[in-house]
Amino acid sequence: MGGECCRDVVCEGCPVLLVLDERRRFLFRVERGRVQGSDRGVVRHDDLVGLRYGSWVRLSSGALALVLQPRLVDYMERGLRRRSQVIYPKDHGLILMLLDLKPGARVLEIGVGSGYTTIVLAQAVGATGRVYSYEVRSDMLETARKNLETVGLLDRVELKHRDARLGVDEEGLDAAVVDMPDPWAVLPVLHRALRPGAGAVFFLPAVNQVSRLLSAMDLRGGWAETRVYEVLLREYEPRGDALRPKTTMIAHTGYLVYARRVEERPAQVGDRNRG
Amino acid sequence: MGGECCRDVVCEGCPVLLVLDERRRFLFRVERGRVQGSDRGVVRHDDLVGLRYGSWVRLSSGALALVLQPRLVDYMERGLRRRSQVIYPKDHGLILMLLDLKPGARVLEIGVGSGYTTIVLAQAVGATGRVYSYEVRSDMLETARKNLETVGLLDRVELKHRDARLGVDEEGLDAAVVDMPDPWAVLPVLHRALRPGAGAVFFLPAVNQVSRLLSAMDLRGGWAETRVYEVLLREYEPRGDALRPKTTMIAHTGYLVYARRVEERPAQVGDRNRG
Amino acid sequence: MGGECCRDVVCEGCPVLLVLDERRRFLFRVERGRVQGSDRGVVRHDDLVGLRYGSWVRLSSGALALVLQPRLVDYMERGLRRRSQVIYPKDHGLILMLLDLKPGARVLEIGVGSGYTTIVLAQAVGATGRVYSYEVRSDMLETARKNLETVGLLDRVELKHRDARLGVDEEGLDAAVVDMPDPWAVLPVLHRALRPGAGAVFFLPAVNQVSRLLSAMDLRGGWAETRVYEVLLREYEPRGDALRPKTTMIAHTGYLVYARRVEERPAQVGDRNRG
Amino acid sequence: MGGECCRDVVCEGCPVLLVLDERRRFLFRVERGRVQGSDRGVVRHDDLVGLRYGSWVRLSSGALALVLQPRLVDYMERGLRRRSQVIYPKDHGLILMLLDLKPGARVLEIGVGSGYTTIVLAQAVGATGRVYSYEVRSDMLETARKNLETVGLLDRVELKHRDARLGVDEEGLDAAVVDMPDPWAVLPVLHRALRPGAGAVFFLPAVNQVSRLLSAMDLRGGWAETRVYEVLLREYEPRGDALRPKTTMIAHTGYLVYARRVEERPAQVGDRNRG
Repeated sequence: MGGECCRDVVCEGCPVLLVLDERRRFLFRVERGRVQGSDRGVVRHDDLVGLRYGSWVRLSSGALALVLQPRLVDYMERGLRRRSQVIYPKDHGLILMLLDLKPGARVLEIGVGSGYTTIVLAQAVGATGRVYSYEVRSDMLETARKNLETVGLLDRVELKHRDARLGVDEEGLDAAVVDMPDPWAVLPVLHRALRPGAGAVFFLPAVNQVSRLLSAMDLRGGWAETRVYEVLLREYEPRGDALRPKTTMIAHTGYLVYARRVEERPAQVGDRNRG
Repeated sequence: MGGECCRDVVCEGCPVLLVLDERRRFLFRVERGRVQGSDRGVVRHDDLVGLRYGSWVRLSSGALALVLQPRLVDYMERGLRRRSQVIYPKDHGLILMLLDLKPGARVLEIGVGSGYTTIVLAQAVGATGRVYSYEVRSDMLETARKNLETVGLLDRVELKHRDARLGVDEEGLDAAVVDMPDPWAVLPVLHRALRPGAGAVFFLPAVNQVSRLLSAMDLRGGWAETRVYEVLLREYEPRGDALRPKTTMIAHTGYLVYARRVEERPAQVGDRNRG
Repeated sequence: MGGECCRDVVCEGCPVLLVLDERRRFLFRVERGRVQGSDRGVVRHDDLVGLRYGSWVRLSSGALALVLQPRLVDYMERGLRRRSQVIYPKDHGLILMLLDLKPGARVLEIGVGSGYTTIVLAQAVGATGRVYSYEVRSDMLETARKNLETVGLLDRVELKHRDARLGVDEEGLDAAVVDMPDPWAVLPVLHRALRPGAGAVFFLPAVNQVSRLLSAMDLRGGWAETRVYEVLLREYEPRGDALRPKTTMIAHTGYLVYARRVEERPAQVGDRNRG
Repeated sequence: MGGECCRDVVCEGCPVLLVLDERRRFLFRVERGRVQGSDRGVVRHDDLVGLRYGSWVRLSSGALALVLQPRLVDYMERGLRRRSQVIYPKDHGLILMLLDLKPGARVLEIGVGSGYTTIVLAQAVGATGRVYSYEVRSDMLETARKNLETVGLLDRVELKHRDARLGVDEEGLDAAVVDMPDPWAVLPVLHRALRPGAGAVFFLPAVNQVSRLLSAMDLRGGWAETRVYEVLLREYEPRGDALRPKTTMIAHTGYLVYARRVEERPAQVGDRNRG
């Protein structure tokens, strides 16, 4: 009945997602001597040590709670600080697919916000990859740093308190995620930083921004395979006998614009687009 | 102007996505002496060797085509064989997020079909991870094997021509994806194969299947954190001056049911659910 | 500067929708001597009399408010009592189209609830049409009656405190709307009440209900042209310079099942469906 | 076994929707001596005369077909001529609700196209209402006229071959529907033609058009209660035992902008919007 710490067994210092019910969910790191409270009774951290994940613990009230390993999406739901609008897992999933992210990849991030996307990128590129994250606001950057520490992925990320519009340090990068209000301002910087053929995803809340970005890419040239997406996630009540979508949903987070950094298209005989 | 083969520069044997326009897209591996045809002219593979990805090549007609590294989503769009309904990237992205897949993970797949999901899992777990894929139909398995070879990920996958309902060989796995018409039949097998707390995603086209699976999980016990999702992907025409959603869309592929394998919930005083 | 009372000009007894801003909206009937309050100041009903609809009135605070004719959708948003889950305008619109409702039509309604759908049907059939509405709960029926009075459409509706499963009084009806948890129980009653070829719409929150209704119609026969719909309404922030969908939306109200009452299908040589 | 012609019983000259199966659907008017063909056999119109709607007729091949009254939505699906992109019933339904259309209403239509919306409006306003429809293209107008004749609603509509941007003849109208690429050009005309408080719906395919219209209304003033909607209609396979959404759907027709014609908003102390 052994097992690896934090993977199979709860040891001191391991993160735990404690689930009483749909709404009573607690995410914390186990510390000897501490107590996790709730309006349904308490549990001593000491009583969690040695438990296997996936097992049940009884609170002081007798109520049962489930002991789980937190996933990134659990952290994002309730274990992290949030100082800004964040990108959601529904969008993160598509970003991973569009950018074709692999372990070992080197990724640029412009606009870190609370660091949710940073975390997702850091997990996907693995210990052999690297994320270079630029953010102009120091308070955001600090929040992102704490969140990355919380999930244990800070060592793969270089957080830079810099305005990426003025340039970035890296070259030959495999992918980029841009989450800022005026992404057209970083197109030249992106073009220099990405390796030829690499993709970038731009996250934009309003359609006017999408229009303007598309027009800017068109005008500048050097971008191809442009796509604009919107991901709608419907969640259903998980009841076998009365299955139905939840009544409300997040109807909008933002649009995802994907494009690949390519060489300027040469002129072509009879070319109407660029003479 | 150097660069790594197949990453920066097209060498013999490298895969190429050749893009003339939205519909004229060709995905192939470069072989000396071969020619890629199209109704807009041809290009000799020899002329591609040495080109940087992201650059343009002129076809015999004078038309220009873009030379790109194919991503998994490009392969899935036109570079792979398809013998079955497949899961789409929009769903793959969410699956990666729900299962919290990391480099190094060991994943079970039941129902391989054409191997599209296998490929996505294999890329996400990296060279240090492993995918164990069970499929009852040998023709499907053969298609999946060829597709895995095409994308160069076969070495991370163990394809097994076996009925998973009768059991699987692995234990302590980190995650599972199940794509079969009667997933309730593998619930006990999954429970044994997954490490405690690990998650599984079930892909199901019809709501009746979702209902039945939810009821079966409820009855059996040992599953928690159940969620039911549907991902809708809207794509927009990428025109800055006339931005609008594409007229038609894939309105349905399937429902995703997520659940975590946990211990049987102990009885509780005053418990209405399990006396 | 004349005009018709309650259409162009506010007279005593006319309904008014008073709009200060997006959230401060008041719907009432004008009564001499009364005052409409708000946290932004008050307006005396006497000051509204004689105003043209579409004009502005100044509150005691100096703030401006718009004086409008309430539409049915305005009433449904804030001018009516609600004792139950209601069907929304997005669904009402499709119901009108599916049932091909015309002025003069005679419509059956089973399951009145708060009477929102009754109101929509009553307006569509006009003064020459008629709505026959059955409801088992007397409290609901009372709410519906008050709501119909509020919008001034009670005279076109016959509210019946009766269990429609036991039969209805009418025959040869042009259409039916059924909003009850077990609509399969009224299929024979509907078949007798509708004229041949007439359509019925069933409103159902859960997919299991839809499945069961479809199976029941299939088994019984006498129904054709069956369709199942779901209407998703996305609303955008009405800002020209930052156009984007509202963040949250009503993701689910219910499914609409449409079917036409036809004759039992005769047996056919080689008929697999009904031997 | 009597009944009213064209309502209950098929008489000469009555319209019939003949349904063999999901795809074999024919919409025609019954004429003595004619024959309706299909790849599954034929039926003589003479054999239809006297049949009740909702009953079955046997084709020459022995196959059965259903005899139904066509609804407007059936006409729009296959019984009308189409020279342009049309508005769909999913949008028509919401338009009826937003405009609060009642029997007797007088409605303005700018941009007639193939007349689909004209037909819907004409049915909703009834014999006592009136639709005034402006269209600059004479070929469109001719198509609309034929379509209105086909459904028997031409007598309620005044088709005008005129550029509405230069003005319309009517005043005090109850509602307007505008389907043209540059609706901002008719805002002054609309303002004069609509009675105070009346609503208008603008149908626009691209978001840029929506942005521009919103900005124009904002700038001009005289419009309030602005709303922007998009209706998504999901259709399900109508099978009780394998219920699932249809694989593809119409993902986009257009955006609906609703606004009410009001008086110019007076200046207000401390008013930031209009000084």
